[in-house]
Amino acid sequence: MDEQEKPLSLVLFSGTDDKLNAAAVLAVGAAAMGRPVNIFLQYYALRAFRAGKVYANHALAWEATDALTHVIRAHPGQHWSELLKQAKDVGEVNIQACALSMDMFHLKQTDLDPLVDGIEGVAAFIASVSDGQVLFI
Amino acid sequence: MDEQEKPLSLVLFSGTDDKLNAAAVLAVGAAAMGRPVNIFLQYYALRAFRAGKVYANHALAWEATDALTHVIRAHPGQHWSELLKQAKDVGEVNIQACALSMDMFHLKQTDLDPLVDGIEGVAAFIASVSDGQVLFI
Amino acid sequence: MDEQEKPLSLVLFSGTDDKLNAAAVLAVGAAAMGRPVNIFLQYYALRAFRAGKVYANHALAWEATDALTHVIRAHPGQHWSELLKQAKDVGEVNIQACALSMDMFHLKQTDLDPLVDGIEGVAAFIASVSDGQVLFI
Repeated sequence: MDEQEKPLSLVLFSGTDDKLNAAAVLAVGAAAMGRPVNIFLQYYALRAFRAGKVYANHALAWEATDALTHVIRAHPGQHWSELLKQAKDVGEVNIQACALSMDMFHLKQTDLDPLVDGIEGVAAFIASVSDGQVLFI
Repeated sequence: MDEQEKPLSLVLFSGTDDKLNAAAVLAVGAAAMGRPVNIFLQYYALRAFRAGKVYANHALAWEATDALTHVIRAHPGQHWSELLKQAKDVGEVNIQACALSMDMFHLKQTDLDPLVDGIEGVAAFIASVSDGQVLFI
Repeated sequence: MDEQEKPLSLVLFSGTDDKLNAAAVLAVGAAAMGRPVNIFLQYYALRAFRAGKVYANHALAWEATDALTHVIRAHPGQHWSELLKQAKDVGEVNIQACALSMDMFHLKQTDLDPLVDGIEGVAAFIASVSDGQVLFI
């Protein structure tokens, strides 16, 4: 990795499949360009990364009408979890669960999918974003 | 434009008129200050930029009660598409449709409003954001 | 404060308690690390900062099922307004109401909670974010 590459960091709050897919596509793109990617899972997004729940139907944003839902679900793209695996294969992608959300939902690391690398507090997350970009999704 | 001005980049995901308006106001403000603005249209936001659909009612965020909707709709501001035209007049504003979302919704560039300058993949978008700021809206 | 610390800026659009809490936690974390924090209140978030309304029930994101709502409400964390007060105690936190949203909702500064430091336009906000990070929440 080029020393000058700055991280792309994503705070994932929403747990719908469309937003998770948008996030995963950004993660793959950034990782492929040699940028470290930090992902911080909060609230509903964290719940989508529970073991055994990743491939569940996490609904779409409320804006998706029935007709749009059909079109989006019919699109033959990879699942967001597969995109994240791919991002980890090609680059440096670190996925952390927010300690506060873990506590709120009474979750332990063993309750989470192996895609999640660890649990950290918000201070550690903010330290990791350094001078790169951060998106709240 | 000052060479040191860094871009302000907006990933537009939501297609409601209130979020599109918030985005357009940020775009006008940044363009007026000499910052390049990159806008990347995904999912529901992309659909709001279809030709002939720009001035349609794209609803408001689900938080808008009936009373709030009335207040917001009664406010005499410019339409978000007018604000974006104004931003293009005063500065360097580039609006790109996400290739993946175009494919998902079976859209071609001719299906889009002329405000949209082109279609690009996520890698091109990430390259364009360089070391400026990126907001996901 | 270290002169090199760059601001963390938050555009708050949503006015639900879960997103306001996520924002407040980021603000506390950044302030504790010596980073200036700029908060810009728009739309539904601005309404949550009206005097006498801060502790009202501002609902949760639509993704919160009844069961999740119960779990989130039962979690013994501090209210987001308390976290913001704490952030102001430990660091440099500036909370500004968006002039356009103030006008839209027919609000004056005296209608707002004392947590809000002032009213500013989007140009002033963009000038204040300089080369730090900006999240849209």
